[in-house]
Amino acid sequence: MAFSVEQMRSALSDGLLSFPVTDFDAAGKFNAETYKERLESFIKHGVSSIFIAGGTGEFFSLDEADFREIVEVSVATVKGRVPVIAAAGRSVKDASNFAKIAADAGCDGILLMPPFLTECPEDGVVDYASQVMQSADIQFIYYNRGNGILSAESVKALAAANPNMVALKDGVGNIAALNDTIKTVGDRLVYIGGVPTAEIFAEAYLSIGVNTYSSAVFNFMPEMANKFYKALRAGDQTVVTTIIKDFLFHSAVCATAKKATLLA
Amino acid sequence: MAFSVEQMRSALSDGLLSFPVTDFDAAGKFNAETYKERLESFIKHGVSSIFIAGGTGEFFSLDEADFREIVEVSVATVKGRVPVIAAAGRSVKDASNFAKIAADAGCDGILLMPPFLTECPEDGVVDYASQVMQSADIQFIYYNRGNGILSAESVKALAAANPNMVALKDGVGNIAALNDTIKTVGDRLVYIGGVPTAEIFAEAYLSIGVNTYSSAVFNFMPEMANKFYKALRAGDQTVVTTIIKDFLFHSAVCATAKKATLLA
Amino acid sequence: MAFSVEQMRSALSDGLLSFPVTDFDAAGKFNAETYKERLESFIKHGVSSIFIAGGTGEFFSLDEADFREIVEVSVATVKGRVPVIAAAGRSVKDASNFAKIAADAGCDGILLMPPFLTECPEDGVVDYASQVMQSADIQFIYYNRGNGILSAESVKALAAANPNMVALKDGVGNIAALNDTIKTVGDRLVYIGGVPTAEIFAEAYLSIGVNTYSSAVFNFMPEMANKFYKALRAGDQTVVTTIIKDFLFHSAVCATAKKATLLA
Amino acid sequence: MAFSVEQMRSALSDGLLSFPVTDFDAAGKFNAETYKERLESFIKHGVSSIFIAGGTGEFFSLDEADFREIVEVSVATVKGRVPVIAAAGRSVKDASNFAKIAADAGCDGILLMPPFLTECPEDGVVDYASQVMQSADIQFIYYNRGNGILSAESVKALAAANPNMVALKDGVGNIAALNDTIKTVGDRLVYIGGVPTAEIFAEAYLSIGVNTYSSAVFNFMPEMANKFYKALRAGDQTVVTTIIKDFLFHSAVCATAKKATLLA
Repeated sequence: MAFSVEQMRSALSDGLLSFPVTDFDAAGKFNAETYKERLESFIKHGVSSIFIAGGTGEFFSLDEADFREIVEVSVATVKGRVPVIAAAGRSVKDASNFAKIAADAGCDGILLMPPFLTECPEDGVVDYASQVMQSADIQFIYYNRGNGILSAESVKALAAANPNMVALKDGVGNIAALNDTIKTVGDRLVYIGGVPTAEIFAEAYLSIGVNTYSSAVFNFMPEMANKFYKALRAGDQTVVTTIIKDFLFHSAVCATAKKATLLA
Repeated sequence: MAFSVEQMRSALSDGLLSFPVTDFDAAGKFNAETYKERLESFIKHGVSSIFIAGGTGEFFSLDEADFREIVEVSVATVKGRVPVIAAAGRSVKDASNFAKIAADAGCDGILLMPPFLTECPEDGVVDYASQVMQSADIQFIYYNRGNGILSAESVKALAAANPNMVALKDGVGNIAALNDTIKTVGDRLVYIGGVPTAEIFAEAYLSIGVNTYSSAVFNFMPEMANKFYKALRAGDQTVVTTIIKDFLFHSAVCATAKKATLLA
Repeated sequence: MAFSVEQMRSALSDGLLSFPVTDFDAAGKFNAETYKERLESFIKHGVSSIFIAGGTGEFFSLDEADFREIVEVSVATVKGRVPVIAAAGRSVKDASNFAKIAADAGCDGILLMPPFLTECPEDGVVDYASQVMQSADIQFIYYNRGNGILSAESVKALAAANPNMVALKDGVGNIAALNDTIKTVGDRLVYIGGVPTAEIFAEAYLSIGVNTYSSAVFNFMPEMANKFYKALRAGDQTVVTTIIKDFLFHSAVCATAKKATLLA
Repeated sequence: MAFSVEQMRSALSDGLLSFPVTDFDAAGKFNAETYKERLESFIKHGVSSIFIAGGTGEFFSLDEADFREIVEVSVATVKGRVPVIAAAGRSVKDASNFAKIAADAGCDGILLMPPFLTECPEDGVVDYASQVMQSADIQFIYYNRGNGILSAESVKALAAANPNMVALKDGVGNIAALNDTIKTVGDRLVYIGGVPTAEIFAEAYLSIGVNTYSSAVFNFMPEMANKFYKALRAGDQTVVTTIIKDFLFHSAVCATAKKATLLA
């Protein structure tokens, strides 16, 4: 852990977040060499935090040994230049185990995914997340998504019960519900945008206090992702409009056509 | 018609829009006296346009005679102080008839509702709306809602085919789709927010170029609706947050509980 | 009115129902001559009831004069050989007016459509439907569809309040909810299947007590629609499977591709 | 493996399937003693197959050691009296591992759950399932559910590529889509109903060739579950109606109220 809570809040509140894909070779084995190059490239392009082994990073395909190697390689490569956040999820036991491995390896935070398969009432999801958050001495970001979506009141309860919950990442894209949550929970949490084509939501996110988002596009076109983010924060409406119009619209259409979902 | 197209664009682009309920007596007959007082009160509270006989104004319950009386009373009462927009909808024939009645009575524009009952492909909806728009010499606002929802490309086609289409009103609340439409169609149209509890969407609407919205709340608490709108446009985050937190959240909850839908 | 309530229940409970399209000429005027031929053809093919001016019959496009002519021509053509059911809908006032016109013309029943545009709690829909049912001395079939969908308890309340409610037509296709309704309300009502490609639902409908359905396909291929219905009722699984597999599957795909909705 | 493919097809095609909950003690440890009693009780009540460690059996909470113990205890307890089917799922690697553990322990089949977290196009899901099915020498039942829902054409492709796919379990409850699948794929597979309150769907399931279903209710009231199933297969409409009306309706309401989802 190279960053204080305040430093991490600050990193999560300003700047583009990035979610590197995880490199595998043709045999399905983790390729540490190309992955290190990827991380260096991300840092060179000025990301404010790196989220490893997450949705874009194939968390759902990794076993414990893969995960351990990825978090260790990441921490050793990033060397405290930016916060490193690793994913955790599945059952309470598995998620706690992933969180401990990441904390022991020196990661700065955990992005907590929803549980596997089961659909349960919101209070059950709050229990799931609380048990995981209380299992490791590290900051947690809760990913509001899939079978783990929490309403404003449940997010408030989760944050109240877990001082080491630092942020909420939105994977829904329901602006009214997210605005309810932000107005209800306020500055207690940092808010991160995380829908697939986050750039299309970026202006609306920013308007309600979601300053940063995870850019899936960053994996493919980091310069354009950066240019868009800078224009957005500077209020340069012409650049924002041009990029959404010329580029992102078409990729959104493509993505929908293939039903691809790049939830970072 | 008391306003030029440019004056109407301007009125629709800045200031709170209001949708008076239509007054009926216990026997279900239009009550012109209390309705006139309502219109005066709306103007006194500084609305920038008045949308009459719309969703909040019970358009779905009005027959031709009711509608004619309401538009005539409205024009005679408002006397050109702000634009008066009347609803039209149902079949091509009925909607064209409503539009002509409103135009003849001196209204400044038409809010075109989706057709009754039928669900058809988007090109059919574009045909429906085009036929109505071409039936009357008046400006039209298309209400994107219910069984008449159009994607960005269809809105673009509708605007291209109908020079007298001046605006799009959003009744969906899907920020990504609306942003696509705005980035695709651009300044050719004015964009108006129209989801039930529009105040919760107001910051996001504004961030993508939707400067105004129809405030259902204005019917009950005009001072608060105005205070919120002014704070929003001035960027006064504290007032915006307080009003959403203390008031609107609870009314949204109430509305949901009763499944009430105040689509203005 | 040529049929007693019991005769109508019987006709609605056994045999294929049909919903003729309404014939228009190129100028959009009702074409009585070709429409009469269509009705004769329907009767010749052995339908058990004819539903006129409904969804397939462009009810949403008809004005009062169109509607009056269609119901009068229909009653004069059918001459009591099978029950004639006409649609009604829109506002309470309009729907009551349509129902009276149909009753005066000698129709045997009314298919009540949901209200125009408004979305309201279920008790409001029950009020809407009750007011219409109490406005005319004729049997009513409630069409559970669109913005007028009622749960089991609301259907029960509607039937209890209106002795002249004879049937419920399903336009939803949610078998669990429909089964709840049928088990809750029981024999008080007749149940009619009415989703767009009703043949795909036919076996499931029949299994819970929905013996008949409106066949949109009947308009185009009456022999095949009849062959399917007879095989269904006779339990001839081979014919049922072959027709669904070879024919209906492909038309369902086509319909979806064009997003066409032939809600009869 | 105590049963041939034909014996298993037969067991899956006739009789009530059951999904025992997995017994844990207060410390969250598997309780083999009470679990064995549960299995004996299930067999005594005449179930035709036992699905262990599935959705109702907390598959999502089990680690490899838990799973191994449960499948071994189950096989040793059931002793070939009925087929024993174990769940598998998560990533390709994990699901293959679970399948191998179950096959090695002597289970008769695998119920394959959808992958964890990721949402991908249908061809990706087919790949996922095919890789798992090809990793173990055992019969597979594909569970069509959640983020792994396949259309008729994809089910057909999956069955064609994997001779050891014996059945499809429906967790969706869309009768039209399921009927398409059954008419398209036919006798190549056995079809099993698997929505939460399967009894409400049972008549419709049976009508399209889904003879059996997993009864969550069996866990709590095995006599009633059996009585219902026997009446259903015997066509005893009075008993079926009475049980749905008096009992299941209320449990469905309770389940919905708590948003509980007992996907077995």
